[in-house]
Parts: sequence; C-alpha cells; structure tokens
Amino acid sequence: QIDSARLWGSIHETAQFGGTAKGGVRRLTLSSEDKQVRDWFRKACEDAGLEVHTDALGSQFGLRKGRDMSKLPVGIGSHLDTQPTGGKYDGILGTLGALEVIRTLNDAGIETEAPICVVNWTNEEGSRFAPAMMASAAYVGDFTTDDILSRKDIDGTTVSQALDSIGYRGDKPVGFQKLGCFVELHIEQGPILEAESKTIGVVDSGQGVLWYDGKISGFESHAGSTPMPLRRDALATLSEIVLAMEAIAKKHGPKAVGTIGEAVIANPSRNVIPGEIAFTMDCRSADGAIMDALDRDLRAAIAEIAARRKVEVKIDLVWRKPPTHFDPKLIAAVENAAKTLGYSSRRITSGAGHDACNLNTVMPAAMVFVPCKDGISHNELEDATQPDCAAGTNVLMHTVLAIAGV
Amino acid sequence: QIDSARLWGSIHETAQFGGTAKGGVRRLTLSSEDKQVRDWFRKACEDAGLEVHTDALGSQFGLRKGRDMSKLPVGIGSHLDTQPTGGKYDGILGTLGALEVIRTLNDAGIETEAPICVVNWTNEEGSRFAPAMMASAAYVGDFTTDDILSRKDIDGTTVSQALDSIGYRGDKPVGFQKLGCFVELHIEQGPILEAESKTIGVVDSGQGVLWYDGKISGFESHAGSTPMPLRRDALATLSEIVLAMEAIAKKHGPKAVGTIGEAVIANPSRNVIPGEIAFTMDCRSADGAIMDALDRDLRAAIAEIAARRKVEVKIDLVWRKPPTHFDPKLIAAVENAAKTLGYSSRRITSGAGHDACNLNTVMPAAMVFVPCKDGISHNELEDATQPDCAAGTNVLMHTVLAIAGV
Ligand SMILES: NC(=O)NCCC(=O)O
Ligand SMILES: NC(=O)NCCC(=O)O
Repeated sequence: QIDSARLWGSIHETAQFGGTAKGGVRRLTLSSEDKQVRDWFRKACEDAGLEVHTDALGSQFGLRKGRDMSKLPVGIGSHLDTQPTGGKYDGILGTLGALEVIRTLNDAGIETEAPICVVNWTNEEGSRFAPAMMASAAYVGDFTTDDILSRKDIDGTTVSQALDSIGYRGDKPVGFQKLGCFVELHIEQGPILEAESKTIGVVDSGQGVLWYDGKISGFESHAGSTPMPLRRDALATLSEIVLAMEAIAKKHGPKAVGTIGEAVIANPSRNVIPGEIAFTMDCRSADGAIMDALDRDLRAAIAEIAARRKVEVKIDLVWRKPPTHFDPKLIAAVENAAKTLGYSSRRITSGAGHDACNLNTVMPAAMVFVPCKDGISHNELEDATQPDCAAGTNVLMHTVLAIAGV
Repeated sequence: QIDSARLWGSIHETAQFGGTAKGGVRRLTLSSEDKQVRDWFRKACEDAGLEVHTDALGSQFGLRKGRDMSKLPVGIGSHLDTQPTGGKYDGILGTLGALEVIRTLNDAGIETEAPICVVNWTNEEGSRFAPAMMASAAYVGDFTTDDILSRKDIDGTTVSQALDSIGYRGDKPVGFQKLGCFVELHIEQGPILEAESKTIGVVDSGQGVLWYDGKISGFESHAGSTPMPLRRDALATLSEIVLAMEAIAKKHGPKAVGTIGEAVIANPSRNVIPGEIAFTMDCRSADGAIMDALDRDLRAAIAEIAARRKVEVKIDLVWRKPPTHFDPKLIAAVENAAKTLGYSSRRITSGAGHDACNLNTVMPAAMVFVPCKDGISHNELEDATQPDCAAGTNVLMHTVLAIAGV
C-alpha cells in the first residue's frame, strides 16, 4: 500500500506552483510556474534515488534500476502542465502517483526485475502549443523533434524559445529512453465512475481527436448604417458554425463530442460588424467511422453557411489522432490489480487524450482512472478524494509490480 | 465655391496620422495618433485666424469672429478620431470641411454677421470609451463631465488619464463655448445616395441607439470528456443570442439593425468548453416604439436561451439615445443650399449616430451627407470621391452663410 498522506501532501505542495485564488492551477507548459514544478519534481526524483534526464523537448525521465538491466523499463507517469484555468489533479495525480510508487518500493526495499521509469511529459494539455500530448507524439515518431520545436504559441514564442527560457531543453535526444510499456494513472475527467460508485476505471480505449484551425473572413462595416441583408458578419457566421457543430455531435448521441474553445474577433469594436474571426474546433469519437462522419458533416455544414452568408471560411485540420485501443494484456493486469486490492471497477473509454494513447501506438500501454467530482475537469473546481487517489496509485503500483516482476 | 484640391490635400495629409497599410486610419480617441492630428488641426485653425480653445474633455473649438458678436456662433465640424480599422473620411470630412469653409471665407474676404465656430469633438466613435459621441453628450448635459472623465477603456485607462497623457485636457469647462446651432457634414456610411445617384443627403432624422454590456457565465469543462447534454457552454449560448438578435432586427425589415461587435472568451483554450464570455450589443431604429420592441424581444429571447442552457446571462443597458428629428428650418436651409448649387439631393435618415444628434437636443441642428463607395464605413476600405466631398463642403458653406448672414 502506498502512503496516502505523502501522496496527498505532494499533490497539495506542488499545487502552489501556479495556484489560483479559486483553488485551481494555472501552469501553462514551459512557463515559469512549469519550471518551478519541474525543479521540484527533479529534486524529488533524485531524492528517491532515480537517475534523472531531460530530453530535447523537456520531458523528464527518472530511472529506477531493476535487477535485469537488459529488460526495458516499465514507464509510468503523466504530465505536470495545466490548462489556463485548470485543476490540481489532471496529469499531476499520474506523475506524483508514479513518484509515490517509487517512494513506496524504496521504503519497502522492493527491487523489481525490470527497471521502472517515471516520466513527466512536456505539453500534454495543448493549450499553449498544439497539438496536445506533443512530446509523447514526438517520442513515438508522429512528429519530428524539429517540427515540434518550431510550434508557436499565440504570442509567437516557439517551443524551442520557451524551453530555453526556463532552461529545460535537455541534452538527451527525444526517444533516448527506451520503454517496454507505459501505464498512466489519471482522474477520469468525466462523470461515469462517480455516477456508478466505482473506484477504478480500467481504461480499454480512448476517443480519437480532430483539431482544426479556422478563419472566417467577412466584411467589417458600420453597425448602425449597414442594412441587415447587406451584412457579411463573421460573428453571425461563427454562431451558425458553433450550433451546427453542436447539432452534428449530438446526432451521434453519446458517441461524439464537438467544441469550439477559442474564437477571437480581429479589431473588435462595439459599432463595427465583425469582419474577421480566428477560431479552433475540437471533435472527438472513439469510433473512427464516426470521426470521418464528423469531419464530413462539419465541412459540408460550414460550406453551406459560408456560401449562404457570402463569407469565406477556411478550415485546416491541424491534428488527427485516431481512436486508441489499449493493450489487452495490460488492461487485464490493471483489472486484476483492482480486483486483488478489492476495489470496485469497470471498463471505460477515455474521453480525453493522454500520453498513454500516443505510447500505445508503439508499445503496450494502459491506464487507470479514478473518479473526479461531478466529472469536472479543465476547471479550477476540479476535485478528487484522497482515498480515490490513493486507490488509483495502489492499482498503478500493483500493475507495475506484476509487469516488472518482483 | 470651396477649394476642392485644398480640402482633398488636408484629408490626405492628416490620413498619415494613424494611416494603415490598407489605406485606412487607426486613430483611436486620445491616442498618440489622435494627438498628432489634434496638433495639426490646432495649428491649421490658428493659421486660418481662429481663436482656438480646448475644453475639459479635449474638444477643440476654433472661433471666427462675426460682425455682431452678440449673436451666438454657428457651429460646424465633426470629429477626427476613428475606429480601430477605420477610414479616411468618417468625421474627418466634416471637420476638415468646416476648416475649408473658414479658409474659403478668408480668401474671399467674406465677413459674416454671426460668428462661426469650428469644432472637433472628442471620442465620437465610442470604440475606446463608451458611449459614442461622448463629448457632445456632456456638452448638452446628458452626462456630467466627471462621469465622462471616469469612463475606462479595456485596459482600465480613464478618459481623464488619456487626456493628460496626450496633453489635451483643456482649461475651459465643458459648455464654455455657446453655440446658436450646429451643422455637420459627413459621409453617408450607407448605400442609399450612391444607389440613387444623389450627391447630397439632406439628413432629416437619425436612428436611436441602444448599447448593452453583456456577460455569460456558463461552466468551463473538458472538451473531450464532457458529454454534450451536460454542457453549459458560454459560446453556444452567445451563438444563439447573436442569431436571435439578427432575427429580431430582421423582423422589423429596414427599420432596425442589431449587431454584436465584441465578444471575448475568458481564458480560452482549444480543449476547454468556454465558461465565460463578455460581449456588447448595439441595436438601432429611427422609431422609438421599435426601439422598445427590440429591447423587449431581445431580453425575452436571452432569458429563454439562458434558462434552457442553464447558463447565467447578464445584460446592462449602458446607453440609450432616442431617435433624432433635426430642425425643420435648418433642414430646409441645407436643402435650399443643395438646390441653389445645382446638386441632386434627397431627404435621408442617418443610420449612424453623430454629434449633431446630441446638439439637436438643445439647439437647432442639421446634417449634410455625401455618398461613400458601396456604403462602406468603419472599414479601412471606406472611400468617397473628391467631387462629392467638395460638393458637401459647398453645401455646408452655403448653409452656414444663409444662417450666419453675410
Ligand atoms: N487529459 C487531458 O486533459 N488532456 C488534454 C488533451 C485533450 O484531451 O484535450
Ligand atoms: N458616425 C459614426 O460612425 N459614429 C459612430 C457612432 C455610432 O453611430 O456608432
């Protein structure tokens, strides 16, 4: 059994780095707050006897030796970055839970056959730089390191510049640390486990993701003197797109979601009809065929709206992550650990994307979910209980022991 | 006849102050660009022999003596501030046209019975500070000077601070310069004169304006893991409001317009459902009863949308300007001047608000419109022809001569 109080203490101690008045965390990737938590994490890993290295995209790897160093390490961990108004648990539980597993094994004097590697992946959230799960995507070869280094945030700062500004461009190439498999603990970020009073979610699959950048070019003109029928209003166009996206997602019932999270009017003024809007779209489904349908329906709806309103709408698909099907043997290991420990559990699909979804494309991967209050995440009010966090960490530890061998 | 080339030269010379790559002007009120054009204007007025004073809100008054100084001056002018992406003519034609009238009278050695006062009103546009036509509103007593001085822009800078920062807080109290009447020349900012090939619009009325500040409070949550039916999406709510406002305005045919020009998502992120949006609304009609209907319908629609989406929407009416009915004698004077000069004309309603609309509440006022290309205004592509601008200035001059007496 892990040390529940120590885990809880770590979570709340690090929540100060970017902590907000509402009890959440604002710790955008590669920000000064992110540097603070990285420094804390590096020291904690070193204190736990791990050999810590940082790769060229800033991901941190802490290695615990195994008896058989010819075996590839069992990877565990998650991320420490947050949304602009994020919570204390999203990613953090998985990273500090992994650290807690190491601390517990140390205290108990348990040596494993295969090594164990604790990982903090850079920019899982995808708020500051797109795509989300950027560093693990480069790790599995979906993008080159140089491509990722050149990605820009809204102020034009590149990943490369941001890494240097906090001193976290590591000396190891991306992929330097080979892993044999990866297990990630996370809060569910949805309402299912809580609603069904299950302690553990055995994640068997994950939704695919479509991310688009959009731009509407209408025509700026006077709010008072431009007759309604002559308008080419970029905001009215966006409004129809938002509602079309909502209707398209709803058509597929619980099997799809669609969101417009960002929309910025260029040179806004009270008495000017908006002429230009930049926006982003996020569509998801666990079913590849539904993802294709979402893409098709969305493009058709947008084309119709744009033509009718005599406005130009450009849509760029900037990221397509197919649905994830986790490794059956690892899923069974997680399920077995939950059962052995006496926790209630159910199989579950992840609504959110995770680094484990990327890793699963090149190695066996799996995930452990624990409930979060009202299913709320990406919100400062995100909450989870200490016993649930401890339960998830225990399941993570027992899964790792089963895979790594004692 | 005024000097068309000189007028055209002044318009294009001052267009450099805040001139944009697309041929427009970005000269927000009380900005450094506004200081530049004010300095230019003061010098030009002084060079034309006017006695120039600035009031406590930065409005500039240039007085040309009349034979009978017991008579109140005939006020002419407009404004030199622009929208963030504005044009070269909106307000500028009326201000520099007034200057051109003075220069022409000087050249011809014409003395008038009543004095003439050229005015550049502060913040007509209302983009940086609300309401629009702020200085003329204070002039007629709709707001106190202190109230206006405390208004803030989006960065929290007050009118008072902005005046000091460019050295344009004048030493004269608002209202120091009494006027007997006011005539304003302006581009139409709408498509009617051009469509009907009329050179002069004799403005007999102006639309009333309703300005609202709005705020939507939904709930931030994860774009991937939050089921569609559980969302309280602030952007989807705004989208319905935008389309409802459009439908409500259209219901009244050409007699109403409605616009949402500003909308800002708080802490936006691609994979976060928007939780909070601040926005503004602008509704207009020349008919007071329709204005009341717009307000009522809009509030009802918003209440229904908010309740259905379980989202809070707050609406504050921050400005209500009733419809304007200009002075019949002055309207006739404008119409007569156009006829005498042989220009085609028609009566017209102003879609936009103007300082003349404020002045009309305490003194006789009127306006002269000239066509603008495709009815486009509040856009960098705003355009007008040199002959039309000259024609309008000639009508302004002849109207002034008729009122002031030669
Ligand atoms: N787990 C999580 O919130 N990931 C962020 C990436 C996404 O799914 O949008
Ligand atoms: N004339 C003009 O564009 N005024 C700005 C104020 C308004 O009507 O919105």
